[in-house]
Amino acid sequence: MNLKALHKINYGVYVVTSRNDGRFNGQIANTLFQVTSEPPRVAVSINHSNLTWEFIKSSRVFAVSVLCEDTPMTFIGRFGFRSGREANKLEGIDYRIGTTGAPIVLENAVAFLEVKVTKEIDVGTHTIFVGELVDADIISEKTCLTYEHYHQIKGGKTPKAAATYIAETKGEQK
Amino acid sequence: MNLKALHKINYGVYVVTSRNDGRFNGQIANTLFQVTSEPPRVAVSINHSNLTWEFIKSSRVFAVSVLCEDTPMTFIGRFGFRSGREANKLEGIDYRIGTTGAPIVLENAVAFLEVKVTKEIDVGTHTIFVGELVDADIISEKTCLTYEHYHQIKGGKTPKAAATYIAETKGEQK
Repeated sequence: MNLKALHKINYGVYVVTSRNDGRFNGQIANTLFQVTSEPPRVAVSINHSNLTWEFIKSSRVFAVSVLCEDTPMTFIGRFGFRSGREANKLEGIDYRIGTTGAPIVLENAVAFLEVKVTKEIDVGTHTIFVGELVDADIISEKTCLTYEHYHQIKGGKTPKAAATYIAETKGEQK
Repeated sequence: MNLKALHKINYGVYVVTSRNDGRFNGQIANTLFQVTSEPPRVAVSINHSNLTWEFIKSSRVFAVSVLCEDTPMTFIGRFGFRSGREANKLEGIDYRIGTTGAPIVLENAVAFLEVKVTKEIDVGTHTIFVGELVDADIISEKTCLTYEHYHQIKGGKTPKAAATYIAETKGEQK
């Protein structure tokens, strides 16, 4: 079995945010997709160990910002490579409060989605949260960042907690 | 609410195949993603009305072929715009039987995944099937087809049964 085949799946790069008791948090995710058209529903896979998981689990809402291709790596690092338990990740970031009460990150965003969770499925290390779209809009006509561009052009890494993490030594296994 | 924001989510284009009582079928899907890394699990959203849905529901296995950018539109049309109830979609196609017994489409494929379904979640018109990876390999180093390329460069359409279908008149709605 060659796990590198999984790298051929195509993703975008997103900031997924949520709220809990007046606090905000957000994280980078790439495993977001639309699952039904009528009504529009989306799903995202979030690691149990992440603070954003706790917030979504409790508030049952999340917002998604689709990142543009020229998003600085420092911005991705802020949301993707440190925990909201240590610092307020939204501090100094351009955002507004959405209809769900979740913060919508506007900086480097091409579009946003706001989602009310209606179902969830536990898949081991992660939960797939499925929800109905309650608001959405285009923010900019810039090119979207793909996960491939993030890796190949920006030299980005995948943190261990990510759904798509594959250890270098595990690329090929029988 | 501007549903065109959903078009900013990034996808690849895949053939998802399955088997049932010695019969094979396959369809085009774009809503495939990896949901956990340890062990590697993937999820796909499939419309209840599709024959492939019936086959996966019954056999609990599916295979995925990641399509390359130069996949002919006739090939996508064969799998995406007609039903396996009317014709054997695999006839004349280069494929082999995988370890799950599902047919793995090799034509225009960059990589394949074979999956045993372990969980599923009903989300209205579609089911999200979640499963463990049982085999996977790279087939070619060609560029993968993105859903954006399919639409913008190839002029491809989204059929009504797709998870990401948005009627033209519904692009903007309040």
